[in-house]
Amino acid sequence: MIKDYISNNKDRFLSELFELLKIQSVSADSKFKEEVDKAANWLVGEFKKLDLDNVEKIKTKGHPIVYAEKIIDHSYPTILVYGHYDVQPADPYELWDSPPFEPTIKNDKIYARGASDDKGQMYMHLKAYETLKNVGEIKFNIKFMIEGEEECGSDSLEDFVVKNKEKLSADVIVISDTSIINNENPSITIGLRGLSYMEVELTGPNRDLHSGTYGGAVNNPINELCKIISSLKDEKGKILIPGFYDDVKNYDKNTREEINKVPFDLDEFKSHINIGDIYGEESYSTVERIGIRPTLDVNGIWGGYTNEGAKTVLPSKAYAKISMRLVSNQSSKKISNLFSDHMKKLCPPSCSIKVTEHHGGEPCIVNTKTKGYKAAYNAFKEVWEKEPVPTFDGGSIPIVALFKKELGLDSILMGFGLDEDAIHSPNESYGLFNFYKGIETITSFYNNFAANEK
Amino acid sequence: MIKDYISNNKDRFLSELFELLKIQSVSADSKFKEEVDKAANWLVGEFKKLDLDNVEKIKTKGHPIVYAEKIIDHSYPTILVYGHYDVQPADPYELWDSPPFEPTIKNDKIYARGASDDKGQMYMHLKAYETLKNVGEIKFNIKFMIEGEEECGSDSLEDFVVKNKEKLSADVIVISDTSIINNENPSITIGLRGLSYMEVELTGPNRDLHSGTYGGAVNNPINELCKIISSLKDEKGKILIPGFYDDVKNYDKNTREEINKVPFDLDEFKSHINIGDIYGEESYSTVERIGIRPTLDVNGIWGGYTNEGAKTVLPSKAYAKISMRLVSNQSSKKISNLFSDHMKKLCPPSCSIKVTEHHGGEPCIVNTKTKGYKAAYNAFKEVWEKEPVPTFDGGSIPIVALFKKELGLDSILMGFGLDEDAIHSPNESYGLFNFYKGIETITSFYNNFAANEK
Repeated sequence: MIKDYISNNKDRFLSELFELLKIQSVSADSKFKEEVDKAANWLVGEFKKLDLDNVEKIKTKGHPIVYAEKIIDHSYPTILVYGHYDVQPADPYELWDSPPFEPTIKNDKIYARGASDDKGQMYMHLKAYETLKNVGEIKFNIKFMIEGEEECGSDSLEDFVVKNKEKLSADVIVISDTSIINNENPSITIGLRGLSYMEVELTGPNRDLHSGTYGGAVNNPINELCKIISSLKDEKGKILIPGFYDDVKNYDKNTREEINKVPFDLDEFKSHINIGDIYGEESYSTVERIGIRPTLDVNGIWGGYTNEGAKTVLPSKAYAKISMRLVSNQSSKKISNLFSDHMKKLCPPSCSIKVTEHHGGEPCIVNTKTKGYKAAYNAFKEVWEKEPVPTFDGGSIPIVALFKKELGLDSILMGFGLDEDAIHSPNESYGLFNFYKGIETITSFYNNFAANEK
Repeated sequence: MIKDYISNNKDRFLSELFELLKIQSVSADSKFKEEVDKAANWLVGEFKKLDLDNVEKIKTKGHPIVYAEKIIDHSYPTILVYGHYDVQPADPYELWDSPPFEPTIKNDKIYARGASDDKGQMYMHLKAYETLKNVGEIKFNIKFMIEGEEECGSDSLEDFVVKNKEKLSADVIVISDTSIINNENPSITIGLRGLSYMEVELTGPNRDLHSGTYGGAVNNPINELCKIISSLKDEKGKILIPGFYDDVKNYDKNTREEINKVPFDLDEFKSHINIGDIYGEESYSTVERIGIRPTLDVNGIWGGYTNEGAKTVLPSKAYAKISMRLVSNQSSKKISNLFSDHMKKLCPPSCSIKVTEHHGGEPCIVNTKTKGYKAAYNAFKEVWEKEPVPTFDGGSIPIVALFKKELGLDSILMGFGLDEDAIHSPNESYGLFNFYKGIETITSFYNNFAANEK
């Protein structure tokens, strides 16, 4: 019956999603501010059509949060759905095969910015609720909190959550903003990495110097920055910041074996991104390096003359953006401080250094013993006829730790994306299979959770 | 008498130079092409006024070379004067206290782009010749070769020199395009460093990746580039490219003591560029590090996300411009090849590397035993009443090696600039003292050389 309803309404579901995908709700770029607001208004309209209560567009210092709820019976368990209606910038536009805000179907996939991240995935929850409303019996309460700043740091959300604990009270949070292994191997994300994101400015002489007149006698801040960055890891890929690994959770042999059971094809991984070899911390597999080990990556570096041709400058300054992905039980703040202190120690008297912190986020691990996790597990098993595998994602969703801390709630990371979706990149896509199958799986999750909790 | 002539004509000399300084002959920027041509035409006019023969504006693929000569007697020695009428770009204009092409006198200095490098210094030779023509007896032949591409690589000059060996035959070349220690301590440049200028492109994955989804398992080309660059020098500042030092001329204890006799104030050096400490190759002084030792400096580096804020990208590419100043008897071509081979060996299988070469130039040492050097030495001694000190300049004038190779001629580097002239920078200046004293010294050089050679 559920299957039939989804099938009978599949064209309408898609055309509604297309309406949302056409709105250029790029949150990071202020020139799209009105478009972001338009997306929020559109969502308000959809929630009203679903006959939800207390539908609100909540103003923030940044972009609005859209809230809606349906409290059917206070004795029912309450599910809080979190998602976001904002998207990453679509630049560079010229690399898109079809315009990013004109959704297109090709090879059974929806191509558009936000198709997977997160409009497509978030909208499945509205359609799952609609499906149950029409052809099922709803034995749970539901709350929707959909924000418009996920792609630019979720700054306003923290404030909102802290101030609305009562309003947001629930039994579980469910988020569809992650991936499964592939369409043959469903999975549930049980780990996310945290983040410390730092910026370093190294100054040598007080102005750019002629590399002939001074070269050899004055420390070059680019050479020095390279030396400092290079010293942050040893030959085995271990990070050498004192104290860095102190809080890293180590897994026993059995658990590591479990983690490594995830289907993974090394040749495919290498050929997909065209690398001659993988590289990472010694004695860990690729799956472990991404899932359960911390990293240190330079995300950007610049200094001196970077235009065409040659200029013989001994530059005054060199800069780098350096981020560390963190794992349980590392603390973003603590790691940022350790990094900062260590960098200052590494700076020689011939230079001066400034270290600043960008946004960070805490790592998290999902408890697989909860009713929420079991409901998700059962939903996949029922709808996909296959047991979902627990996986560790390398990315970060900092609000998950926030929900745990402020609301005391576990988040269920029930995403349906694929690695090939190219989120944040040109030609982002989302499979039609994943969209429809996801809606069905979510209805099953809602029902399973309602039944388990009772 | 010479002194009197210069003194009596000093305002005219200056106003003539101002005419030239007003012409915006920026050779590197094609939008100034007509201005560069205007400067060449202006020089042609000046040479004609001096009654020189065979005055020519010679077309090249780039900017013209201006040639003029006076062959008084074939039995007289011939002096070839080399200089350039083009200037560096004046950007950033907003940092100039007075407009770069509106010459201004302040604190006994001429402020203008090209005041010192090289219009002011080159023009002294015309005025020295004029002075001797009017109040002396000219017992030498003179040839002028003034180019318009020195600030953008002297591309056309090599071709011209190779094809005009007969026309350019002479007994000595004199170039005023360098500096003296200060106005109390005249000096003659006897060493210039060569240059190898390379560019490196390191590629990791074939596209920018999400640092969460891939971080820790894929080599980051920025981290790797930092590691490669850092490995190019050891803790003692020695360059670790195999074979790099094979041809470096080593000086004996006495010569090094001589070199270190050059007046040098370390505190002033440090405070001038506001550095906490100097830095360079162990067991060499600052003067030696700049004068007689080779270097390896990163002139520019870039890769990944370099705008405001944070982006969690694991970039596909990282780039660096790396140059090496060379000393006798290193060869630019050989060092470029050693660098290239070494970089390729350092690149791990997880990345790929591309190394390209920008322009280079050979180092040179001026033989102090020649008649030309003695003439310059005597000229300083006579006019400044102080013995000039031989000094090693850290910079490069690649055409000096070209003149030696193609014309078999030693160049006398008889410059009158000061470090404080800020050549290539905003507020370039040239001291009036240096301008007039330089003209007088050049007349003495011409006469001394003519007398010695006879």
